[in-house]
Amino acid sequence: MQDSPISPLFERLVIIGPGLIGSSLLRRACLDRTIARTLVTTDHNPQVCAHVTQLGIADEVHTELAAAVEGADGVILCIPVGAMGEVTEQIIPLLSPGTLLSEVGSTKVSVIRAVSPFLRPDIFFIPTHPMAGTEFSGPDAGFSTLFENRWCLITPNIETVTTETQKERTLSPLPQERENATRKIETLWQKTGAKTRRMDPIHHDKVCAMVSHLPHLLAFTICSTADDLADETRSEVLDYAASGFRDFTRIASSDPIMWRDIFLNNKEALLEMLARFMEDAQAMARAIRWEDSEFIMDRIERGRRIRHSLIDNKQA
Amino acid sequence: MQDSPISPLFERLVIIGPGLIGSSLLRRACLDRTIARTLVTTDHNPQVCAHVTQLGIADEVHTELAAAVEGADGVILCIPVGAMGEVTEQIIPLLSPGTLLSEVGSTKVSVIRAVSPFLRPDIFFIPTHPMAGTEFSGPDAGFSTLFENRWCLITPNIETVTTETQKERTLSPLPQERENATRKIETLWQKTGAKTRRMDPIHHDKVCAMVSHLPHLLAFTICSTADDLADETRSEVLDYAASGFRDFTRIASSDPIMWRDIFLNNKEALLEMLARFMEDAQAMARAIRWEDSEFIMDRIERGRRIRHSLIDNKQA
Ligand SMILES: NC(=O)c1ccc[n+]([C@@H]2O[C@H](COP(=O)([O-])OP(=O)(O)OC[C@H]3O[C@@H](n4cnc5c(N)ncnc54)[C@H](OP(=O)(O)O)[C@@H]3O)[C@@H](O)[C@H]2O)c1
Ligand SMILES: NC(=O)c1ccc[n+]([C@@H]2O[C@H](COP(=O)([O-])OP(=O)(O)OC[C@H]3O[C@@H](n4cnc5c(N)ncnc54)[C@H](OP(=O)(O)O)[C@@H]3O)[C@@H](O)[C@H]2O)c1
Repeated sequence: MQDSPISPLFERLVIIGPGLIGSSLLRRACLDRTIARTLVTTDHNPQVCAHVTQLGIADEVHTELAAAVEGADGVILCIPVGAMGEVTEQIIPLLSPGTLLSEVGSTKVSVIRAVSPFLRPDIFFIPTHPMAGTEFSGPDAGFSTLFENRWCLITPNIETVTTETQKERTLSPLPQERENATRKIETLWQKTGAKTRRMDPIHHDKVCAMVSHLPHLLAFTICSTADDLADETRSEVLDYAASGFRDFTRIASSDPIMWRDIFLNNKEALLEMLARFMEDAQAMARAIRWEDSEFIMDRIERGRRIRHSLIDNKQA
Repeated sequence: MQDSPISPLFERLVIIGPGLIGSSLLRRACLDRTIARTLVTTDHNPQVCAHVTQLGIADEVHTELAAAVEGADGVILCIPVGAMGEVTEQIIPLLSPGTLLSEVGSTKVSVIRAVSPFLRPDIFFIPTHPMAGTEFSGPDAGFSTLFENRWCLITPNIETVTTETQKERTLSPLPQERENATRKIETLWQKTGAKTRRMDPIHHDKVCAMVSHLPHLLAFTICSTADDLADETRSEVLDYAASGFRDFTRIASSDPIMWRDIFLNNKEALLEMLARFMEDAQAMARAIRWEDSEFIMDRIERGRRIRHSLIDNKQA
């Protein structure tokens, strides 16, 4: 690895958790040395560290958080949302003033609430959510193009979900400094090929509940409904899965700990969207029972419209 | 088109409804003239007939059912399940003794019940369900390889769902003749590249409710739940659809009439599977509300197991 002639965005960037997201970010940053002069990563599991060292996707790999974050000007938590608070608590006393602290969790409100109690006003905490992923996890699952043309949502307005006392502790007295930090993290994601957009954390959680968390919940559920069928029928479901069921199982193969954490950490928004969905499914059941053709046709037509909007949006 | 040296399976095979399934069967039969010596098709819409004539996928194209089925030894209904009874009523008086009548509907019990009142003991009625399809419809959507390596379920035991009087009217006095007709239709589907399996009609409807009809119902429903969101959120759902939601919309873009018919014609089995699913979704909601990590993990793990079984089954 060689120095870049133009000054990189970060001098020492630490990726905590070299899993799917973390290792993809490292791989991308290895290719574009304008992201960071020194790339550091750390994992609590020494075997994972040894493997990541072999992969050669970081300049330094540490098993100890303290050794990793020492002297860092940027730290990005790429760990399950349920672990964000605890790890922040451990690293905060070790960070130099002015360090940019970020994270990539799939939920925002609960992560901000978990992290905020430990923040200092001289640390800039900018939460992000790269809307990219696969159903695989771990350092081998990552690849440098994961974020290309995908959205990365940035939720810098953490004060909308923190308490008054936390606000004093967490927000830098100079709004311009926070704005600069936000721009810096936006630049980082743009360098990975992502499109960035700022969003309020509460709104983020609502949109993601609908767009990602509810579909995953339904996919996990239909798999376990099928799993409960009598043996013969269940084995036939597997034989004939190509007829629709299969599309649900792909997303149902994602990492259990990550998804448990997401469900528990976006409880309110997810339960709200699920309740709406259940009402709609009940209405559909009623329409089928009473043979209300018009209602059924209307629901099916809406599905098609949404699909066509996606095709027009080039998201399909 | 030229005659085949070996004697074809049918002399005059009539495909009623040259849509996705019908036109795919015609295209395949055009390539393999051991399926039928003369390929005939018919559609109630003269414009569709004109277009099918241009496509050159049949030897004869008729707007009139009577002209199409005259002298046929095989007739396959490739029309929505809700239209099967009515069309059977029209053609039955026109069929020669010994004709094999088949259909490809996605539900079996209701089709058999709709068709049975019109049957004659000298006509062999063998229902089938090729488990192949796309989200598109009409004659342009078909292609000759649609059925390759897919299952085609055959449900010859129509007596399990018909009344005693219908049984007398519908079943040939010679079981061997029905067996021969069943083998003939199995051979037809095998010639298209499909794998065939016999199944009881009631069991068929249960398996398909789980494997295909319920996933479609959930996909239509989640699209309409999203459609009901406030404008801003809805447009964001479209922007970020790639995160899971998109997988549900593909199957939600299927033909409304076909799916309305399927839902109405597989009411009991579908409502039963939906009720089980709703119970499971409620249990998941409760587990999220009460933060029952263990339950949530168990459900997610089942999803992964089902997915891995599919991969082992090479259906994924
Ligand atoms: N996958 C996606 O589709 C996706 C998309 C956007 C955002 N995200 C978010 O990105 C984050 C990482 O997800 P991922 O898919 O990259 O997961 P992953 O591949 O499983 O990687 C998670 C990383 O976090 C580490 N880790 C796990 N528990 C930890 C703990 N208690 N303390 C410290 N480190 C811990 C893991 O180390 P060990 O393996 O050694 O335990 C691993 O290095 C999550 O917050 C997730 O919500 C995921
Ligand atoms: N698509 C799948 O995934 C799939 C898979 C397996 C089985 N099936 C079953 O196959 C059958 C046909 O489906 P498809 O996908 O081929 O549909 P399709 O492409 O829409 O074709 C349906 C055909 O039936 C004709 N038709 C419609 N209503 C009719 C009526 N009342 N009387 C006579 N003809 C009528 C249509 O003619 P016009 O267009 O001119 O009205 C068209 O030729 C259905 O029973 C379906 O359940 C479908």
